[in-house]
Amino acid sequence: MCVSPPYIRTSPKHFKETMASTDVEMSDLQQQEVHVKNQSAKWVLNSPDPPGFGQQIFGLIKKNVFPHRNSARSSASSSSSSPKKQPLSANVIAVLTSIFPILDWGRNYKASKFKHDLIAGLTLASLGIPQSIGYASLANLDPQYGLYGSVVPPLIYSVMGTSQELAIGPVAVVSLLISSMISKLVDPAVDPVSYRKLVFTATFFAGSFQLLFGLLRLGFLIDFLSHAAIVGFMAGAAIVIGLQQLKSLLGISHFTTKTDVVSVLEAVAKSLHTSWYPLNFVLGCSFLIFILITRFIGKRNKKLFWLPAISPVISVILSTLIVYLTRADEHGVKIIKHFKGGLNPSSVNQLEFNGPYLGETAKIGFICAIIALTEAIAVGRSFASIKGYNLDGNKEMLAMGSMNIAGSMSSCYVTTGSFSRTAVNYSAGCQSTVSNIVMAITVFLSLQLLTKLLYYTPLAILASIILSALPGLIDYNEAYHLWKVDKMDFLACAGAFFGVLFASVEIGLLVAVCVSFGRLILNSIRPGMEELGRLPGTDIFCDKAQYPGVLDVPGVCIFRLNSGSFCFANASPIKERITRWATMENETDEPNKLTNVIILDMSSVMSIDSSGILALEEIHKKLVSRNIHLAITNPRWKVIHKLKLAGFVDKVGTDCIFLTVNEAVEAYLSSRSIGLGNC
Amino acid sequence: MCVSPPYIRTSPKHFKETMASTDVEMSDLQQQEVHVKNQSAKWVLNSPDPPGFGQQIFGLIKKNVFPHRNSARSSASSSSSSPKKQPLSANVIAVLTSIFPILDWGRNYKASKFKHDLIAGLTLASLGIPQSIGYASLANLDPQYGLYGSVVPPLIYSVMGTSQELAIGPVAVVSLLISSMISKLVDPAVDPVSYRKLVFTATFFAGSFQLLFGLLRLGFLIDFLSHAAIVGFMAGAAIVIGLQQLKSLLGISHFTTKTDVVSVLEAVAKSLHTSWYPLNFVLGCSFLIFILITRFIGKRNKKLFWLPAISPVISVILSTLIVYLTRADEHGVKIIKHFKGGLNPSSVNQLEFNGPYLGETAKIGFICAIIALTEAIAVGRSFASIKGYNLDGNKEMLAMGSMNIAGSMSSCYVTTGSFSRTAVNYSAGCQSTVSNIVMAITVFLSLQLLTKLLYYTPLAILASIILSALPGLIDYNEAYHLWKVDKMDFLACAGAFFGVLFASVEIGLLVAVCVSFGRLILNSIRPGMEELGRLPGTDIFCDKAQYPGVLDVPGVCIFRLNSGSFCFANASPIKERITRWATMENETDEPNKLTNVIILDMSSVMSIDSSGILALEEIHKKLVSRNIHLAITNPRWKVIHKLKLAGFVDKVGTDCIFLTVNEAVEAYLSSRSIGLGNC
Repeated sequence: MCVSPPYIRTSPKHFKETMASTDVEMSDLQQQEVHVKNQSAKWVLNSPDPPGFGQQIFGLIKKNVFPHRNSARSSASSSSSSPKKQPLSANVIAVLTSIFPILDWGRNYKASKFKHDLIAGLTLASLGIPQSIGYASLANLDPQYGLYGSVVPPLIYSVMGTSQELAIGPVAVVSLLISSMISKLVDPAVDPVSYRKLVFTATFFAGSFQLLFGLLRLGFLIDFLSHAAIVGFMAGAAIVIGLQQLKSLLGISHFTTKTDVVSVLEAVAKSLHTSWYPLNFVLGCSFLIFILITRFIGKRNKKLFWLPAISPVISVILSTLIVYLTRADEHGVKIIKHFKGGLNPSSVNQLEFNGPYLGETAKIGFICAIIALTEAIAVGRSFASIKGYNLDGNKEMLAMGSMNIAGSMSSCYVTTGSFSRTAVNYSAGCQSTVSNIVMAITVFLSLQLLTKLLYYTPLAILASIILSALPGLIDYNEAYHLWKVDKMDFLACAGAFFGVLFASVEIGLLVAVCVSFGRLILNSIRPGMEELGRLPGTDIFCDKAQYPGVLDVPGVCIFRLNSGSFCFANASPIKERITRWATMENETDEPNKLTNVIILDMSSVMSIDSSGILALEEIHKKLVSRNIHLAITNPRWKVIHKLKLAGFVDKVGTDCIFLTVNEAVEAYLSSRSIGLGNC
Repeated sequence: MCVSPPYIRTSPKHFKETMASTDVEMSDLQQQEVHVKNQSAKWVLNSPDPPGFGQQIFGLIKKNVFPHRNSARSSASSSSSSPKKQPLSANVIAVLTSIFPILDWGRNYKASKFKHDLIAGLTLASLGIPQSIGYASLANLDPQYGLYGSVVPPLIYSVMGTSQELAIGPVAVVSLLISSMISKLVDPAVDPVSYRKLVFTATFFAGSFQLLFGLLRLGFLIDFLSHAAIVGFMAGAAIVIGLQQLKSLLGISHFTTKTDVVSVLEAVAKSLHTSWYPLNFVLGCSFLIFILITRFIGKRNKKLFWLPAISPVISVILSTLIVYLTRADEHGVKIIKHFKGGLNPSSVNQLEFNGPYLGETAKIGFICAIIALTEAIAVGRSFASIKGYNLDGNKEMLAMGSMNIAGSMSSCYVTTGSFSRTAVNYSAGCQSTVSNIVMAITVFLSLQLLTKLLYYTPLAILASIILSALPGLIDYNEAYHLWKVDKMDFLACAGAFFGVLFASVEIGLLVAVCVSFGRLILNSIRPGMEELGRLPGTDIFCDKAQYPGVLDVPGVCIFRLNSGSFCFANASPIKERITRWATMENETDEPNKLTNVIILDMSSVMSIDSSGILALEEIHKKLVSRNIHLAITNPRWKVIHKLKLAGFVDKVGTDCIFLTVNEAVEAYLSSRSIGLGNC
């Protein structure tokens, strides 16, 4: 940035004038062509400076923290169409509308829509209540905590969220994450109170992270879990969750807190030798079959969509009645027993910010925040695209963050948008987030009135309800598609799957992230280089391997760098390849086969670092000593800027820089008899 | 790989025939142009399959483990020029010559060369002996261990190495690395025997890793420490080493084992309050000034190159005499005292492969292996390029590995090529590695005869000899150059520097590697996209920002993806940007400003994953719903292959794929009146 050669100072204005004068002189075609040939290399050298490091950082912060108003135009929920100055009250309303989209669409909400939302909400509640109770047991919490999570968070989401279909509540994967990670810190069987405190604190952290991501517009963070990794992770988590259900399904009292397949199967095998109660298994399996049959019917006949949705509730009612009438709990059938009804109690006092596990809890909160967002936004986006509207990722994060912070203070653990319930909500014809409000009120009423009735509900039924939701998490077809299209993606998928299955949930995620990023690094540092040739009958130069029919230009060898960065990690092998090639080529005995020019096409190189520049200098030095000319074509904006800054252009001479490969070849062919100047 | 559309099966042979037939029909220019236009899009689609995942892995292994013989032709030391079949004995000789290059150049070695090598070797020894003793004390070992390292390893290197100038022995940075990392496991002041065992074991591991790198041709591993990182690391290490010398220079008895600036300065400050001996300081500083003056003279007058080289030995002799005559050791001047002479003792029994620190020792060995190789190969290459021959990185690694494994069994710690001694070797006119043999013999003789005389050598002199070698490690100019050219490189450099200075040597390295790779990842996932326009008077399309004078094509919007990978990490923002742009554009009221075609130039995209393909599909769907055509130009080999595999090409239609942006624009312009077909 400090001392730069004079040609860098060319202003864009001057540059435009130069180019305009080129246009004026276009009288003679021949003259123009020659002119353009000389001119275009100058264009490369005289381009304005790209934004500096400071400007880039500033621009990034500005873009993320103060997004320009234009983006609001495209968001489905925004109503402001005129960019003119508005009075203060209008501004306040606009801000409020932006935070609470319900203020916008609520004005046009009609009774006809409410009818649909009421039906959807009731259907949702009938599926959500048994699911939530089951997930609470998966999270090693008392059943009422699952229901609490279906009251406060959906209410908050319904006023802040931008998705019309997303059904909020506890979900299987996050319940598993919470229980598997916090069980390592405090054993829920030994100290349930401390365990619960940590759960709420982790929920608070998860909400805070989500809110932060939304405020700082860090939506891209959830992209770092690649599609392939999520497929593998979800499938692995589904199997792990399924195995956890063996505890309830077999009526085992003492179970392991680990989640990997080996530990769980060992624990099951051990229990099978000592004490288990077949009645649980019979009960659970019968109702699992019942739920699966209703789902099959629902799929065959779209009008009966409500049947699979309410089958869990029917199962709960029927099984509870059976147990109550036969007093099966006295014959080993495990039942819920404890179920505290009433309003969500406050849990503000249970948040612990100075315990020994603060760092761990924050880490768990972070992982839960990412996984919860990933699931919710994936589900939300897929339904939004069916209905044809856009989901604003950053607003969704704000809504999720707010609902989880509020949830952590009202005895809920991390909630998010559930896939199975969102699908039911959509099938039931929901029109807006009002269906979430209806569900929340229904769950609230159940908490007030019905909890006593759930005393005799067998745990095996909850297990079968969870099991019935799992097949949706396993996507064989997608895994097969990944294998077919992209082996490395499949590896990331398999890594996540087996990591979750045989190690732990975090290890699985870590493996997937590492494979994804490792592949990215390998791709960008691969010292790739391809030889180009001329497509017959054109002035287009293409990769010889990709287009086997291309023709060589005698005396010219054209290489294209094949990686986005020419940097420390690949500069040295590329340099060696070119110099070795030059050394070997000069050993040819036939003088007409000698190469006189090496053209290095840099059009794919987006960035170069000091090692790359050093390598270019050494290549140039070596080639000069072998009497071979080096030409560089189509350096991108940042690359040519750095080459100028580092003084490389001064060293090799400006005549060696060309805009296109064709121009470099033409320049060489036309100067073959008179020499290529000082290049 | 399984079920693929029929057009993929086109063989290269068929492809060439298609292209040959194109050449034949080139009678009418107009017809040919149209033909080429239609043809080139087909070329994109009908290219042969790129090598599969398995083939790539296999090729990589084959290339690394069984390098083709051609590469030997270029290596400076190889003599086999005819690739014909040779008898067995000749093959054996060739293999032996390849492992021991001395067999090759030794045959032409003449007495005239030996004269130069003798002088160089003696000069080297006079510099090396005091330096080695000093580095041994830096590594917390008794002085003789430094000399041992200048006997066995140089001998082995001289028969296996390919560099003519490299002077082998202990070096400052590796000594610091060894002592700082192993001191954390075992305190050398408390248990010197265990400490020494770990040092030899780490040396064994370092040698084994180097040998392994050489055998598996993993030379690229040392490239992962970027140039910038090394500049920062070396400068930080120099300052840390300098601070360590304060112990000897001030005659402090109790010193910290930590290496960071804060701890060391605290320890010094504490000692200054209690007990330190100014005589050490006076002695050390006087001789430091003497050495620096001789170096200044040597730089001014090239004929006196030997003066700075022997000044350390003169300092040692003079100071030893002074202390012996004045009995200054009774007045607080610290002297060497213990110095065991004789042949290198065997240390095979001291290698520990089942202690509690095995993993840690292997890790230390790995780090030392990398740092030692980095220094040696950087030094060797810079001198090789002065003399104009090539250094074979893999052979160097074999030589370094062998010499360190042998060293670990003969009481040496990690040795490598030293910068300061190699420079002296070069200035003294060395002709081959024989100078290393001369040095080794001289050091060996000194060990036999002179160690008793070194009893009174003051430690402060060793400190001043080490201090005098440090300025060469700090390269201000390069740091300034990095700041000017590349801010991120400077950040890696500064990270390594401050990491070494304020945390520890490993942390510094870790910071540098993380910054380098983090930048690489950021560069390759940046959701970059630039708008292109036509350069006036050409059919070249360029970035609007880089070439501000380019012209828009009415009705067409051309984007070029600006990152090497279109993958999970950047697919989503790019998709959003294009769809948002399409949404906003359709809100324009003027129908003639409407964009009808979006051209996506993929020429920079080297790889695509399943998330990228998904994003392309969604972009296509969105644009179709807005009545905008999507054209994809110049997909690279792997990209088009994956798009075909994933069925994307079938979905969007083959008419939307073009070889160049110009063709896509022409196709649109010519079909504007009659519609763009099904694209």
